[in-house]
Amino acid sequence: MSLSNQALADAVLGPPGPAQRRAIAKTITLLESTRADHRARADELLNGLLPHSGKSLRLGISGVPGVGKSTFIEALGLFLINQGHRVAVLAVDPSSSVSGGSILGDKTRMEQLSADERAYIRPSPSGGTLGGVAEKTRESLLVCEAAGYDIVIVETVGVGQSETAVANMTDMFILLQLPNAGDDLQAIKKGVMELADLVVINKADLDAHAATRARAQITSALRLFGQHGDPHHAAHDQALWQPQVLQLSALKSQGLPEFWAAVSRYRELQTANGRFAARRHNQDQAWMWERIDAGLKQRFRQHPAVQAALPLLSQQVRAGEVAASVAARRLLELFH
Amino acid sequence: MSLSNQALADAVLGPPGPAQRRAIAKTITLLESTRADHRARADELLNGLLPHSGKSLRLGISGVPGVGKSTFIEALGLFLINQGHRVAVLAVDPSSSVSGGSILGDKTRMEQLSADERAYIRPSPSGGTLGGVAEKTRESLLVCEAAGYDIVIVETVGVGQSETAVANMTDMFILLQLPNAGDDLQAIKKGVMELADLVVINKADLDAHAATRARAQITSALRLFGQHGDPHHAAHDQALWQPQVLQLSALKSQGLPEFWAAVSRYRELQTANGRFAARRHNQDQAWMWERIDAGLKQRFRQHPAVQAALPLLSQQVRAGEVAASVAARRLLELFH
Repeated sequence: MSLSNQALADAVLGPPGPAQRRAIAKTITLLESTRADHRARADELLNGLLPHSGKSLRLGISGVPGVGKSTFIEALGLFLINQGHRVAVLAVDPSSSVSGGSILGDKTRMEQLSADERAYIRPSPSGGTLGGVAEKTRESLLVCEAAGYDIVIVETVGVGQSETAVANMTDMFILLQLPNAGDDLQAIKKGVMELADLVVINKADLDAHAATRARAQITSALRLFGQHGDPHHAAHDQALWQPQVLQLSALKSQGLPEFWAAVSRYRELQTANGRFAARRHNQDQAWMWERIDAGLKQRFRQHPAVQAALPLLSQQVRAGEVAASVAARRLLELFH
Repeated sequence: MSLSNQALADAVLGPPGPAQRRAIAKTITLLESTRADHRARADELLNGLLPHSGKSLRLGISGVPGVGKSTFIEALGLFLINQGHRVAVLAVDPSSSVSGGSILGDKTRMEQLSADERAYIRPSPSGGTLGGVAEKTRESLLVCEAAGYDIVIVETVGVGQSETAVANMTDMFILLQLPNAGDDLQAIKKGVMELADLVVINKADLDAHAATRARAQITSALRLFGQHGDPHHAAHDQALWQPQVLQLSALKSQGLPEFWAAVSRYRELQTANGRFAARRHNQDQAWMWERIDAGLKQRFRQHPAVQAALPLLSQQVRAGEVAASVAARRLLELFH
């Protein structure tokens, strides 16, 4: 490892404090850089830090705007650091470069938590595709773990495809909902509910009746939609986690101990049945192949012969003049 | 077009009858062949037939074994040919080469329908990946359309990832369920229910009470899980189709007219709001890129330098010695 990288790695792995925080920030800045020399340094650093990573619990948290994500994460973060944990909060928000704003961009959103030195909060990387943004957040997660943060929260907004990316980089995916779940207005988009290992009905104090009704509805829906793995197996195997629904009020700090007890039960159960390790293992393999796929597609799109032929062939597919599979075969021939 | 291809295309496009059936079968056999010269002939044929395709209604049908898929498809097929339609039934079953058996492999399963010359039934292509099996079925679908079949049913078993493949090649995806939907035993696997444009509770005559309860539960769950597109938009736009739940008994031929009325409403509504054409357009583009991705990944895996380095790097990723993204970058460098 280069001398400057070694010093940086030592500081990340060193004792908590301002020097470690600066080293984490500098490392993540290198990871997020688009410069080739930065990327080469970052790769070397990452491999150096990797053996020290992996020891945290990685929690993914999502929910539509207005559900109270910031309040929930701040309350949870303070609850956890008061129990002796160190908490890192990262984010995946591929829209941040478009909208100019970003979740977590404004640190005043979690004023108390961000002021606490036992917490580390980093806004979403900006720019690029969802795959690129997710990659940087994944790598930042490893850096935070190497620095000894034992709880890493990855937040995302309830829009776009970012929930899948976050569920694929965390040990447990938690979906926040409002008590009025039955209303069409709150219906989440397809494919998100089934990612949830735990659904939290936030602001449950606002309408206890609605919260109870929402809990029953979501529990029933999760039973119908949310079987993990082989349903015939799952139905008979009590040792498999089944998604659950909890109520709480982050604003009033009500229900956090019960929430944390559920998270701990999940971790124990999934560790005992081997799913915890298996999920991480599958995520690593999937991550590698997702990055390979993205790289292959980028090279394909940049290939001169493909670039020359793609517009016409795409148009012919659209017009129904060339079958999609035939167009794919022609383009693949041009690529080689 | 070569002379032999021209004769084959003319027969496919010609009048219904034994000669057309033989030509369809021969064309599909060419599509399914792994020989390069057959593939080249098939591509030419496919492009020749393509302008004559696209005029059918493509229905995807899935459900777990025992739900009564064969009985339902036979009853539906007979109902439709009695109304003057011509019905083709295809299948996607990537397990057929492994298990030796195949859905639709045994034509006696749909004895009456398969004996009717207004119906064309073809078992699932066997062998290869799901992507390969799906591609052959997609191409067969185009051939049947060119031959004038105006209803094409694509069946799949309720296991594996084949439901997504079928939903992605059809205009409407229909999921069959049993009346005891509330039981865990019948819970379908993650990600399938949300694909459904229509859920049919078959064998509803067996237990009217259970069927009514299942209908209410699934309707509620679909509201929570199954919003198409932007939920805020969907909630206010009455012109968008919302997934529905129907009861019927295929065995007693009860409920088929109501089922067909729902399918017709779906088609009218989605045609009027532009979603019908948009879905096909998106499917064609996605199909092309899915095939390109599969081809790129195949070339990547067969590249000598990649083949040499992949086992060790995969193992290092597994052992936590190399970050997945770093491994991906190294392999991509070797590929070029």
